[in-house]
Amino acid sequence: MSQLTFGVDTFADVMTELNGTRLSDAETVRRTVDLGVIAEESGLDVFSIGEHYRDDMLDSANAVILSAIAARTSTIGLGTSVTVLSTQDPVRVFHQFSTLNAISGGRATLTVGRASTTDSFPLFGFDLRNYDELFEEKLELWLQLLHGGPITWEGTSRPALTGQTLHPSLEDPLPTWVGVGGSPQSVIRAARHGLPLLLAIIGGSPARFAGHVELYHRALEQYGRPSLPVGQHSIGLVAETDDAARDAFWPLWRAATLRMAAERGWHAATEESFTHEVEHGALMVGSPQTVARRIAESVQALGLSRFDLKPDISGMTYEDRERTIRLLGTEVAPRVRELVAMEPAIV
Amino acid sequence: MSQLTFGVDTFADVMTELNGTRLSDAETVRRTVDLGVIAEESGLDVFSIGEHYRDDMLDSANAVILSAIAARTSTIGLGTSVTVLSTQDPVRVFHQFSTLNAISGGRATLTVGRASTTDSFPLFGFDLRNYDELFEEKLELWLQLLHGGPITWEGTSRPALTGQTLHPSLEDPLPTWVGVGGSPQSVIRAARHGLPLLLAIIGGSPARFAGHVELYHRALEQYGRPSLPVGQHSIGLVAETDDAARDAFWPLWRAATLRMAAERGWHAATEESFTHEVEHGALMVGSPQTVARRIAESVQALGLSRFDLKPDISGMTYEDRERTIRLLGTEVAPRVRELVAMEPAIV
Repeated sequence: MSQLTFGVDTFADVMTELNGTRLSDAETVRRTVDLGVIAEESGLDVFSIGEHYRDDMLDSANAVILSAIAARTSTIGLGTSVTVLSTQDPVRVFHQFSTLNAISGGRATLTVGRASTTDSFPLFGFDLRNYDELFEEKLELWLQLLHGGPITWEGTSRPALTGQTLHPSLEDPLPTWVGVGGSPQSVIRAARHGLPLLLAIIGGSPARFAGHVELYHRALEQYGRPSLPVGQHSIGLVAETDDAARDAFWPLWRAATLRMAAERGWHAATEESFTHEVEHGALMVGSPQTVARRIAESVQALGLSRFDLKPDISGMTYEDRERTIRLLGTEVAPRVRELVAMEPAIV
Repeated sequence: MSQLTFGVDTFADVMTELNGTRLSDAETVRRTVDLGVIAEESGLDVFSIGEHYRDDMLDSANAVILSAIAARTSTIGLGTSVTVLSTQDPVRVFHQFSTLNAISGGRATLTVGRASTTDSFPLFGFDLRNYDELFEEKLELWLQLLHGGPITWEGTSRPALTGQTLHPSLEDPLPTWVGVGGSPQSVIRAARHGLPLLLAIIGGSPARFAGHVELYHRALEQYGRPSLPVGQHSIGLVAETDDAARDAFWPLWRAATLRMAAERGWHAATEESFTHEVEHGALMVGSPQTVARRIAESVQALGLSRFDLKPDISGMTYEDRERTIRLLGTEVAPRVRELVAMEPAIV
């Protein structure tokens, strides 16, 4: 029987108290560390932190947060969701994640992507016109760095390397996934490099991505690569009942989509569109039974071997996040595995 | 009575087993985390990690190591020794250390410097001809970032900032020291910016630095700054007896200075020069009584309010480092405070 991995993704979205007061940035960071510990307690396989440079997402130094979680846990994988490789220096990323891998006894993983928000480009002096070239070049460098040994490299996105060896060297592998938002070109790139694929599905029916998955497997074959896992990342909230979950999620989702509408020209959610997303789309909001059924549909439609739930959006309380993580690990994951007849991952 | 702070500095120098076998890089990193925990247990005030890009020093991602220590401790300060600001992006340093400050509940500090080893310059594409300008410009940017709020800045060493605000924002202050190796210009710069001074004294009589300290206090006065603390960083090993300490330290010191002689044109140590350094110079090698006397001399000659001992050099065992840290905290520090009639720092 094949295995099914369950993970939690977070962007360290800013938290509020039950009365709506915004927590200090520092307190949100500290409680994000606590959530990583709770994810392990709940039997989940991996806890991943994003990378943003915004007022409402406090994950600008994800390796530092992950390292504190590493020190307080012993089995859970520690990942990124995603590392914006385009505007990072792969050399610095290697130093940080090789160190994290050491501290955690080989539990670090990386999911790299081109970024969905673009704040990092002006902040670090990169030009959005090079959005794709930057990623391609840095991904190639990254994969070279993973081999270890002296590295000689020349490109346009960082200074040349002239035979340096990076330390601390890797004792254990540092698995690298590619996170994609829906671009077929990104899917083909992941296959070309022989890297597993993580689909960020945050709107619309997950089954729409079946074509991408087929393209990925076909491309892997053409590049002579072995078969590789496909994962899905979606946003959600799990509560005791469907009504409780929807009531907790809807006002925050409405506020979040209003902000994104203003920023990125998206459509703000209506109650009708929200209900549709919850029942047929990408929002995993509901009771453990409902969310398990929705995830199982996705696992079967897309042939997934990994599912990551993001249990937070900006302004959500710690309590809502904690409950979602506990229910995901203790009720949703076992139920999904039963529904699709798959086994837990061996950590 | 004034206070005296005691710290440990490490570069995560590569460790060996008792039989001389080199540990894996990952194992050295993990045991460096353990040493941070032991420093707190031993009553020391601060544990600081350097920044190097070398085969024998594994501290390329010091914030990641410090964060794991933060998660396993509750009172000890967490610093750097030093952050090579010249070849870092101060924006990334802010993200990492503001996150560390959050995780540790305000225990992060930074000591910034121009670097003694220069490996970071070619690795990150900086020109050694700009050694001093880079540091000055980045230090000014760093101090602006500490103020918080939107930042607009233009310089030659990183892309311009155009009103961005960095997150997570600081909940607690992030004290910044300047580490200097002996350049009067660096001493004056620390005073001009109103930053406390950490003297790296790794050879010769510490009393030779009295002129630097006087220059610092005079410069502070001229710049209209309040009086600020001065600290010393030196290398050493504490054991039960002077002989045991010298016997353990000498072969490693000889090997280290031979390497530095080959690399940087220094003089390799002889047994005679070693004995002189231990008795009158900067090496704090001996029994708790001897090392306490040597540190007390320094505290009085230089008016120190902080002393950091680096208990490791490349190839030293974990056991030697651990013993030095325990004896420093439990025997040397109380004895020095008694000798100079100063109180422990209030953490």
